[in-house]
Amino acid sequence: MTTPEMQRSMANAIRFLSADAVEAAGSGHPGLPMGAADIATVLFTRFLTFDPKQPAWPDRDRFVLSAGHGSMLLYSALYLLGYDDIDLEEIRRFRQLGARTAGHPEYGHAAGIETTTGPLGQGLANAVGMALAERAMNARFGDDIVDHTTYALVGDGCLMEGISQEALSLAGHLKLNKLIVLWDDNGITIDGKVSLSDSTDQAARFAASGWNTLACDGHDQEAIAASIETARASDRPTLIACRTTIGYGAPGKAGTSRVHGSPLGTEELAAARKALGWEYGPFEVPAAILDKWRLVGLRSSARRKEWEKRFATVDGEIRGEFLRRVRGDLPSGVGQAIHRWKRQLNAERPRIATRKASELALEIINAIVPETLGGSADLTGSNNTRTSQMEAIAPGDYAGRFIHYGIREHAMAAVMNGIALHGGFIPYSGTFLVFSDYCRAAMRLSALMGQRVIYVMTHDSIGLGEDGPTHQPVEHLAALRAIPQMQVFRPADAVEAVECWELALQSRHAPSVLALSRQDLPTLRLDQHDENYSARGAYEISPASGEAEVTIFATGSEVEIAFAAQAELESEGVLTRVVSVPCFELFEAQSPEYRHVILGDGTTLSIAIEAGIRQGWDRLIGRDGIFVGMSGFGASGPAPALYEHFGITAAAVVEAVKARRGA
Amino acid sequence: MTTPEMQRSMANAIRFLSADAVEAAGSGHPGLPMGAADIATVLFTRFLTFDPKQPAWPDRDRFVLSAGHGSMLLYSALYLLGYDDIDLEEIRRFRQLGARTAGHPEYGHAAGIETTTGPLGQGLANAVGMALAERAMNARFGDDIVDHTTYALVGDGCLMEGISQEALSLAGHLKLNKLIVLWDDNGITIDGKVSLSDSTDQAARFAASGWNTLACDGHDQEAIAASIETARASDRPTLIACRTTIGYGAPGKAGTSRVHGSPLGTEELAAARKALGWEYGPFEVPAAILDKWRLVGLRSSARRKEWEKRFATVDGEIRGEFLRRVRGDLPSGVGQAIHRWKRQLNAERPRIATRKASELALEIINAIVPETLGGSADLTGSNNTRTSQMEAIAPGDYAGRFIHYGIREHAMAAVMNGIALHGGFIPYSGTFLVFSDYCRAAMRLSALMGQRVIYVMTHDSIGLGEDGPTHQPVEHLAALRAIPQMQVFRPADAVEAVECWELALQSRHAPSVLALSRQDLPTLRLDQHDENYSARGAYEISPASGEAEVTIFATGSEVEIAFAAQAELESEGVLTRVVSVPCFELFEAQSPEYRHVILGDGTTLSIAIEAGIRQGWDRLIGRDGIFVGMSGFGASGPAPALYEHFGITAAAVVEAVKARRGA
Repeated sequence: MTTPEMQRSMANAIRFLSADAVEAAGSGHPGLPMGAADIATVLFTRFLTFDPKQPAWPDRDRFVLSAGHGSMLLYSALYLLGYDDIDLEEIRRFRQLGARTAGHPEYGHAAGIETTTGPLGQGLANAVGMALAERAMNARFGDDIVDHTTYALVGDGCLMEGISQEALSLAGHLKLNKLIVLWDDNGITIDGKVSLSDSTDQAARFAASGWNTLACDGHDQEAIAASIETARASDRPTLIACRTTIGYGAPGKAGTSRVHGSPLGTEELAAARKALGWEYGPFEVPAAILDKWRLVGLRSSARRKEWEKRFATVDGEIRGEFLRRVRGDLPSGVGQAIHRWKRQLNAERPRIATRKASELALEIINAIVPETLGGSADLTGSNNTRTSQMEAIAPGDYAGRFIHYGIREHAMAAVMNGIALHGGFIPYSGTFLVFSDYCRAAMRLSALMGQRVIYVMTHDSIGLGEDGPTHQPVEHLAALRAIPQMQVFRPADAVEAVECWELALQSRHAPSVLALSRQDLPTLRLDQHDENYSARGAYEISPASGEAEVTIFATGSEVEIAFAAQAELESEGVLTRVVSVPCFELFEAQSPEYRHVILGDGTTLSIAIEAGIRQGWDRLIGRDGIFVGMSGFGASGPAPALYEHFGITAAAVVEAVKARRGA
Repeated sequence: MTTPEMQRSMANAIRFLSADAVEAAGSGHPGLPMGAADIATVLFTRFLTFDPKQPAWPDRDRFVLSAGHGSMLLYSALYLLGYDDIDLEEIRRFRQLGARTAGHPEYGHAAGIETTTGPLGQGLANAVGMALAERAMNARFGDDIVDHTTYALVGDGCLMEGISQEALSLAGHLKLNKLIVLWDDNGITIDGKVSLSDSTDQAARFAASGWNTLACDGHDQEAIAASIETARASDRPTLIACRTTIGYGAPGKAGTSRVHGSPLGTEELAAARKALGWEYGPFEVPAAILDKWRLVGLRSSARRKEWEKRFATVDGEIRGEFLRRVRGDLPSGVGQAIHRWKRQLNAERPRIATRKASELALEIINAIVPETLGGSADLTGSNNTRTSQMEAIAPGDYAGRFIHYGIREHAMAAVMNGIALHGGFIPYSGTFLVFSDYCRAAMRLSALMGQRVIYVMTHDSIGLGEDGPTHQPVEHLAALRAIPQMQVFRPADAVEAVECWELALQSRHAPSVLALSRQDLPTLRLDQHDENYSARGAYEISPASGEAEVTIFATGSEVEIAFAAQAELESEGVLTRVVSVPCFELFEAQSPEYRHVILGDGTTLSIAIEAGIRQGWDRLIGRDGIFVGMSGFGASGPAPALYEHFGITAAAVVEAVKARRGA
């Protein structure tokens, strides 16, 4: 075979492995792998730096298949390149329960899958996060240790999603020139032609946000290579519009939406084999072609070995610090500093908002933990996420530790996913809790991927006051607690705030939300203990004066109300304890015995106070428990007037308890 | 005063009413009203067609303050123009509990507030929906009855949000030339200069999606007027970049972020009065200036009277139909057609997916209800939302009844809000249930505004199979049930599917979600009744053979499993009933007596089956009830294998019941 013939055959190997796997599964998406096979072949064989045998090598290039439905493209490439996790058996088991080759690429299923994709647009924003993390790590550790490129393959769907605009405008602003986005420009979506629903000039849109833009024939491997070469030399991020035919090679269906998301069918698949001159059986890749792919894998690993050599010459302390950060271990000293801070809080008993308490905790943490990378979606002064150590990252200058994400909540969350996936940083950033709705699709992926991403969500109730119901979260605590593997913290005071921060930092394989008050709150945790009580999820913060008849459960700003109600009830002879519940998820994970101690045996009256909806609380207080909180949207007015108006007061609690006991 | 002096004074009236109100409230956003006062003055006094005394006149122009934090701009204008709802007392009560002048404009609080804004970007997308509804109503009723323009005032924040891209690209594609967007281009966000976080050339971005773009000095009223004139003549939607100074007139703070979201302070406010030559006291508008504003209101109403004359000459049947649609009444015959369909279903007992059942119900509904406006976010064939009556709306051709929203879930939801707010249509549209996460911020506003928007969310569980956890909703039923005033329906079969559709259509002041299966389900409701059982929220769909010892609650596709478990338990002598729960919210609204009948007295064993998380179910089955469902994310594999893998089977239910009864 001539070189061009071999290159075409290498691409055809992707095409037919993909189409065969979809055919065997009886479902899946052959259109993208067949259409983008040439792009992937050029990228993987000529540009991408990686090592199939050391896939976690930190200075590898990153490849994000943002159009995740084309998962077989990635699986085929990983198999062809010789990644151990994806063998031919895995390709055959595509979309079967327990296979590494899930319907969409799932982070953690196999090495080489850099992020979970499928929900459109997310991968593009993840890639922005990875490219940003790369530059930020480079600014700290230098070219010898960190110098790689992030590539993303996106489809029309990724580009139609709003998150694409947020992500690309941030990348353009920050001049992330080591980000190269390859657009599988096939003009087809599920419903038919893109022109059914969109007429955007995508290149012009990217250019409007400072991108370098190129276009090429996505089936001309030399043209693709030339474009990537040009992109690599750019001082700006680059979009390469690769004009492709979806389902390239399938004579009856190529170029139509019929090839997007269904198997080709026996006949069409046979016709495609004939059309492309692929004379091999299902899942068969001739040795000559497979060898050529495997050689790429071997060759690519040479770069890794050079890096190892360079790395070995680096100062030991720097080397150690780099590896610690890549591993995700916290530096020593965090625990002690937090203990000291808790003791100081116990002595000083400040009355401050928990968003302020979070800032004070961060002042201590950020001084010891250099890998935190803070930010805010244009609410820096309100979220209190920027501490004295933090200079802002700016276009071309990545030494800072704070990101002005702009009014881009969704991309902020997805970019943080990319930063966490890249490694070397613990990203955290803020917005108002109510705007978690904008972030939600990306937050779900933080949880699904088990990434240590920390969401600082301030103004966590009607306590934000006058901005009114559009800005007052009501259902958001419940809605976030609903996400599996997401830890939702709502600290009651400055002591719990720092404890929750400690837990969020220690949580290496789960994201966290910190829901924080706008309004000032007293220090309520007065007993001096090094133990992190918040780790229990719920604990008795204020015991009854004897055998409790009433248990009041509360979180965050409502624990203060619980204390006031307790005082009133105790003064009237009703023995009452208060349980603070900073984290439902951690409480759910406690032993049955501990849970029983906290929840009681059913003879005490249970009452919960939270300035949100009841949903989820029945699990703690039972169907017959009393709930004092919200049953609908909030209103605009001063916070104290709102608490009064919605009946979230100590008096209301006392009254409800008395009414029930009288009944 | 010369005319230009008077025009400036009219703008200053907005400036100082706004600044005074923010000052009195002690919180709020003076920057936008002061900066955009000239824009608003030109728009309201020279272009906007409306009638302050008949604010609901259907052919009025629509004005959307997308930058909702600048609410005082709108309140000031409404007061000055003579809208009855906003008097000076309301202006003085800005941001106080119970005032119509909430922190952000709240739909329903006062006439003239066309939509609720505050969450950024939503208003822009609402405006796109209004402009689309206008063209679609025009296509049906002609220029004499429907011919108005939609204006939106947007800020930098609106344009940075991803939803802006989705909305503007849809508007550009559809050539909605009666949409004019005025951008308050002040270069300032909360964190500081826009250049801290963005360098997008917004005009170029809009142009890339087919918009006409103009720019002008936003403090030069003649220039603003000339731009709007040009925009009105365009065959495309228009963006007018109005360069403004935020907080215009405040000598020490104008042009900085300090004037964005805080009162000016006594000194700065006095200095602003001096700088702009405003010699009047707080809340004082001299009679000459107020008269001039009020005259605008009177003059504008003349257009309404001309319309009334034209409308009176229209054919009576058309007139009646127009008014019915504007009122939002359903046409007659819907109920009877649904009864007939239910009888047919009872006879035929089809085994079909509920998404297919929804399509069949829509075939009947859409034939009788001409105001439904269907759509899908590029999943038309999967959501089954397009029926035989529905041609697609296309650029320049608005006679169709189906919208290809493209891969723009968020804008789809917000555009539907705009369509519903405009009136004349009942919008519904589809995506996969898991992607409700993308829509969520707009869905919350459907609920907050009480709009009849219907979300058709298919592929509602792990039952979607091979696409895997990114596409399998797990927490979404709980998360949507959490939104106040949102009705979440999950029908079990074709009978419940049409009943839920009937309820969604009848729900004039609340949005609905229909969660529908991908997989086929049997017809389970076999007793022939015209009553809509689903309206009870929960009902006994299959009684026990005697006094029930066990109650199985289930929704949607899991009701079939409940039936199988019931059969097995009854065969073993355990008397078991099945309760179908198509809508939690409607069940919550039933009488205590009915709820008691359904929930039981605590002596029967309660078990719930739902292929989602437990959250929310404790309210029905109690803390000690058995739950068979999901406790984490799904997986990729064939649906039956997944149900088996996650233990959501009749056998698992039977086993759990026996274990508990044995215990």
